[in-house]
Amino acid sequence: MFPKEVYINRRNRLKELVNSGVAIILGNENAAYNYPANEYHFRQDSNFLYFFAINKPHFIGVIDFDEGKDIILGDDFEIDDIIWMGPQPSVSELAKEVGVEYIGKYTDIYKIVDDAKAKGKKIHIVPPYRGEHINFYNDVLKDDYKKYISEELIKAIVELRSVKDEYEIKEIEKAIEVGYEMHVTAMRMCKPGIVEQKIAASVEAIPIANGGRISFPVILTQNGETLHNHYHGNILQSGKMMLTDAGAETAMGYASDFTRTVPVSGKFDQRQRDVYTIVLNANKKVIELSRPGVKYLDMHLEAARVIASGLNDLGLMKGDIDEAVAVGAHALFFPHGLGHMMGLDVHDMEGLGEDYVGYDENVKRSDQFGLAYLRLARELKPGFVLTDEPGIYFIPALIDMWRKEGKFMDFINYDEVEKYKDFGGIRIEDDLLITENGCEVMGKKIPKEIDDIEQIMKA
Amino acid sequence: MFPKEVYINRRNRLKELVNSGVAIILGNENAAYNYPANEYHFRQDSNFLYFFAINKPHFIGVIDFDEGKDIILGDDFEIDDIIWMGPQPSVSELAKEVGVEYIGKYTDIYKIVDDAKAKGKKIHIVPPYRGEHINFYNDVLKDDYKKYISEELIKAIVELRSVKDEYEIKEIEKAIEVGYEMHVTAMRMCKPGIVEQKIAASVEAIPIANGGRISFPVILTQNGETLHNHYHGNILQSGKMMLTDAGAETAMGYASDFTRTVPVSGKFDQRQRDVYTIVLNANKKVIELSRPGVKYLDMHLEAARVIASGLNDLGLMKGDIDEAVAVGAHALFFPHGLGHMMGLDVHDMEGLGEDYVGYDENVKRSDQFGLAYLRLARELKPGFVLTDEPGIYFIPALIDMWRKEGKFMDFINYDEVEKYKDFGGIRIEDDLLITENGCEVMGKKIPKEIDDIEQIMKA
Repeated sequence: MFPKEVYINRRNRLKELVNSGVAIILGNENAAYNYPANEYHFRQDSNFLYFFAINKPHFIGVIDFDEGKDIILGDDFEIDDIIWMGPQPSVSELAKEVGVEYIGKYTDIYKIVDDAKAKGKKIHIVPPYRGEHINFYNDVLKDDYKKYISEELIKAIVELRSVKDEYEIKEIEKAIEVGYEMHVTAMRMCKPGIVEQKIAASVEAIPIANGGRISFPVILTQNGETLHNHYHGNILQSGKMMLTDAGAETAMGYASDFTRTVPVSGKFDQRQRDVYTIVLNANKKVIELSRPGVKYLDMHLEAARVIASGLNDLGLMKGDIDEAVAVGAHALFFPHGLGHMMGLDVHDMEGLGEDYVGYDENVKRSDQFGLAYLRLARELKPGFVLTDEPGIYFIPALIDMWRKEGKFMDFINYDEVEKYKDFGGIRIEDDLLITENGCEVMGKKIPKEIDDIEQIMKA
Repeated sequence: MFPKEVYINRRNRLKELVNSGVAIILGNENAAYNYPANEYHFRQDSNFLYFFAINKPHFIGVIDFDEGKDIILGDDFEIDDIIWMGPQPSVSELAKEVGVEYIGKYTDIYKIVDDAKAKGKKIHIVPPYRGEHINFYNDVLKDDYKKYISEELIKAIVELRSVKDEYEIKEIEKAIEVGYEMHVTAMRMCKPGIVEQKIAASVEAIPIANGGRISFPVILTQNGETLHNHYHGNILQSGKMMLTDAGAETAMGYASDFTRTVPVSGKFDQRQRDVYTIVLNANKKVIELSRPGVKYLDMHLEAARVIASGLNDLGLMKGDIDEAVAVGAHALFFPHGLGHMMGLDVHDMEGLGEDYVGYDENVKRSDQFGLAYLRLARELKPGFVLTDEPGIYFIPALIDMWRKEGKFMDFINYDEVEKYKDFGGIRIEDDLLITENGCEVMGKKIPKEIDDIEQIMKA
């Protein structure tokens, strides 16, 4: 937990941003796996962590903007709980640790909501993402919860959480250090003949050994052309590349998120070297150009131009590069967005609504294939933490579909593309901190130069 | 997946047990971690796995008892899904693999329910354990879902799932083989100075490397007196014992569940040896006596008597052993039940209601402290798979409370017990298969004799 002043300050700044009413910041419950008492690893809600820090189930945070009051609702343990779960601090002790003066029982939320309604106060909630929360809100609000989702509260939280303070940056760097170990372990274990899940298991164990968890399900596959591939049953084959997209979450909930793609054989062949170099150049171009005041949409398009230009050189694309990127022809190979915010969520604040986080009145979401998936497009500010993750993929189903539809025949050399249908995919992802004058690749550097990767894999 | 005849047979047997109406067997959705698109590892619902086998989210199984029809509802993948998730078999192909002739779209459930209602058919559901399912049922049934929870369906499913067939036994043995590796790894890694989470991480990685998952959150602690201790932040200290309660789940969803307790130093001291031997004797007594026709309630009481008798010899208990057990005095040290059914759920079918699974018209649940927690009490039958997990714990908060209340002063020698307050806890758990004439400890045997444990820890 950060010093309690951090949390007091966050709540006070929220009070400056939201004028009136009462906000309910709902903590998470344990999530049932296959029956009520068999639970997934507990994950606290990120907004609750941000403002109230308590990393345990069954708490509610309330912020009364009219009275300037913060309240934590929760229940103390009984003897039966102590037998099964061990001694626990009281709600009062937990509240004190985060500088909250007022506490109550969990069920006090009914009275708080009824009182607020009686006094005509606005009740603010954020969009729930678990069924239990929907049920909770419908029950407590005695009404359709959707009416209480507050754009004012969402925008205020996004404004605060978007800019990371020094404590958060240090915590993210811890997650990155664990991420480093995950990726270097994957590179070292990568050999023809090993089943992907053996490596994925070791990768997943590393954050647990460090007191945390993975920040999202591990992607580790020799079929990198499937963007979110969580199947780990293939035996690695020489000639393929292994794409690993994985990150750690610290005990406090902060994330890291990296992707590396390496040749299963340990040595890049010429084709792998060519395509890899294009992706690496795109990744570096973004690092070179990212700074306060530029739009990440423009960084995405810069990366797209590097990719289109490189594929032109390889004979896979043709025609004018700017034109090709403007119409979205490159999206056959780079069908996803360049990156996203990162913090307490690996896609930071995505649950609040991607358009609130990554877009604003100056930058609206495109509906062009590929670009439409871009999560972060708006102008960058110092303190933003975000990912830079361009990629090139050869997706047989997409190639066949576009060719059949005769799509972008002026920009894509389909006959040449056919030869790459067995290639797979490459993505290279780093975590960037926007500084006053530019950006920095955060934390311990995971090897991404061809020579460095080959060196590690040889060892 | 088992041969499709297994699933056809299961559904047909269910049709013999339930007379009329329509059963909805709802598959699981992905469960949100910290925002909608960041998901926990997918776990299919066990009843859906049992009857329909498809191990993917967003499917519904329907069994129409009146028309003798099985139906699978689900949606085929679109091109966008293929880009992100890779090519997938169609619903029609998946249905064929489990011998289901009729398929439909996911939203066809509305029509099926409306038709059933119009025809006055009874709709059967089982209790939902995820918020999403409650919302689904309230929406589809247009009514309070609780009215549709069907005791008839629950009892029929319990009757079928309680007796494991040869395929299931083989699959459970696979989970046990992985469990063996988990526990022997924990024993080998256990050393003074290592942090618990390093061992817990390796234990959790083993089932992942084998294509499965843990069957429940790992308990691995030098504070074994906390029964469900998921905190792994302690540094192991010589003089303490490490209790590991952990099991694997195979890719098909079948569980194993074992507990071993070992001295951190690698060598049992006299006190540890004494208490351990009592627990081991209780565990073995149950193996000796378990057979078709005996009640597991009686096995629990046998174990309790072995424990009370052993603690008598150590001077921690006193007075008549049968009397002490009858009033529940031993529960200060053994406050939980002897065991539970195991299969597709580690506490098999617990979501259907523990009393349906572990009790019947002949055996009702006790309300005595300790005994009330017994999950399985009823008469054993061949094909039952269950756990045998006695333990002895020294729980300071409970000792203090009972002493203050003057509880069971005739049976407990509190002055002596005080000396053990730093001891921790010991549990030894095996998985038993009830055979025609007795029982067998299933699968590869995880060491539990003192000499064998010391041998492994020395290596």
